[in-house]
Amino acid sequence: MQLLKDKLTEVRVLLDASFDKKLALPEGKEKRLVEAMRYSVIGGGKAFRAFLVLTVGEILGLKKEVALQIATALEMVHTYSLIHDDLPAMDNDTMRRGKPTNHIQFDEATAILAGDALLTNAFEVLSDPEMELDAEVRCQLINFLAQMAGKSGMCGGQMLDLIGEKESLSLEEITRLQTKKTGALLRFSVLAPAVAVKANETIQKALEKYAANIGLMFQMTDDILDIEGDEKLMGKTLGKDKTETKSTFITLLGLEETRQRAYQLCNEAKEAISLLGEKATLLLSACDFILERKN
Amino acid sequence: MQLLKDKLTEVRVLLDASFDKKLALPEGKEKRLVEAMRYSVIGGGKAFRAFLVLTVGEILGLKKEVALQIATALEMVHTYSLIHDDLPAMDNDTMRRGKPTNHIQFDEATAILAGDALLTNAFEVLSDPEMELDAEVRCQLINFLAQMAGKSGMCGGQMLDLIGEKESLSLEEITRLQTKKTGALLRFSVLAPAVAVKANETIQKALEKYAANIGLMFQMTDDILDIEGDEKLMGKTLGKDKTETKSTFITLLGLEETRQRAYQLCNEAKEAISLLGEKATLLLSACDFILERKN
Repeated sequence: MQLLKDKLTEVRVLLDASFDKKLALPEGKEKRLVEAMRYSVIGGGKAFRAFLVLTVGEILGLKKEVALQIATALEMVHTYSLIHDDLPAMDNDTMRRGKPTNHIQFDEATAILAGDALLTNAFEVLSDPEMELDAEVRCQLINFLAQMAGKSGMCGGQMLDLIGEKESLSLEEITRLQTKKTGALLRFSVLAPAVAVKANETIQKALEKYAANIGLMFQMTDDILDIEGDEKLMGKTLGKDKTETKSTFITLLGLEETRQRAYQLCNEAKEAISLLGEKATLLLSACDFILERKN
Repeated sequence: MQLLKDKLTEVRVLLDASFDKKLALPEGKEKRLVEAMRYSVIGGGKAFRAFLVLTVGEILGLKKEVALQIATALEMVHTYSLIHDDLPAMDNDTMRRGKPTNHIQFDEATAILAGDALLTNAFEVLSDPEMELDAEVRCQLINFLAQMAGKSGMCGGQMLDLIGEKESLSLEEITRLQTKKTGALLRFSVLAPAVAVKANETIQKALEKYAANIGLMFQMTDDILDIEGDEKLMGKTLGKDKTETKSTFITLLGLEETRQRAYQLCNEAKEAISLLGEKATLLLSACDFILERKN
């Protein structure tokens, strides 16, 4: 687990340097927009998705700079989704990662724009002509990211989530919601390096299974933490699911069954990537990390 | 002018068929998101940007299906920007193109998401492997669109616009605001076909000048219409600039001087593309169309 923690720290440093370069402050009053983008993206969070890109990339022999470029784009998309989810019209959250949410720190209009600009920037990063990757493969990655982030992926999941605040959802719908809302970007994190190096189908299938499982695990532990977590460690308001009587894995399955299923998904995820051998140690630790996380 | 009007009608029909195909309603409750996307994008507005892509594409010998694909992506980006601009936290508009704005028809959260998903979809369209265009050129178009739409383009312009509601802006700032907010996407409209066919530098320069001029003209006539226009024809609330004492070309230059400058920009735009000869008739009409428009 210490290896994983060191890696997460290393990734955070690399990522922040990359953001700092790509989001240089411009001249003029409009620099406020870039300030708002930087506020949420630099130093924010565990960068777990970037960790996955860099770690899978390393295992598959992808150039580190290329993996970092992909991770930068992905974390921009992830952060835009958090900024927009926190808005008053959405989840109306005031704290995120231990500091005021973007719309509290700046204002609502700026936060909407900062999210829009981060999403747009992700595609600028992936289409960068300086990136050492075939144009054909860059296009594939762009298409993949757009699909995972868009109407059939993350945005579709968030729509279901919003609907779930007003009407109850079935277990099938909650699973679909999470597969889209959290799972889609995790799928991109794990599979994008495989697309970039044109990995064979066996490896792609294994990584796909791994990604699907950790995606669901991630959400299950999130639901558990919403009940049992420590607000200080989490850096956000907890217990919201309960007060809002929302359907979650826990309201549908109960706490124990949810914990059981997360445990089973963890084992299956580990098994799925056994074909990668010793190189996959960090990915195995990542499963435990999700299961045992406190924030 | 009749030729231009016929062309605009033709483009609208092509575009709506393209949206209908790309935004097919999915199963499940999350289809609400795609309904909201379709609501704003289908049948909405003059599709002037799509007209520019298709017309310049025709002049330069670009395949019609490819031009339509580019136009579809571009109009998705344009429409997302309108949906977000209309939000309560931004311009707080209730009518757009003669019908309730997206957040009035659906709700604020859905409108934010519909905008996000349209922006994302634009990049899915441009990276579509079915598109008959070199991957290298597709990447160039994606990079170009992301730059024009993002922090240094449209989003940056909208940020300046928001700042301009609270503090007065100089003529230099208003010009930069408009060059970014309206100009950047018009620039993409006119230049994307040139990028797609790898047109020579002389042609690119001419189109660049044309695009810059019609962008500013567009905003000047918008400011004039805000004072003199007919709300019914415009399909939105007018006189907002005045009630909000915002800096505009008119507050800075006066009505007559603004009209004069628009007229001069029109002539220069026409001159810039004279090298395209007779093929450019529709682009010349487009200049008059902007100058004389009533909505």
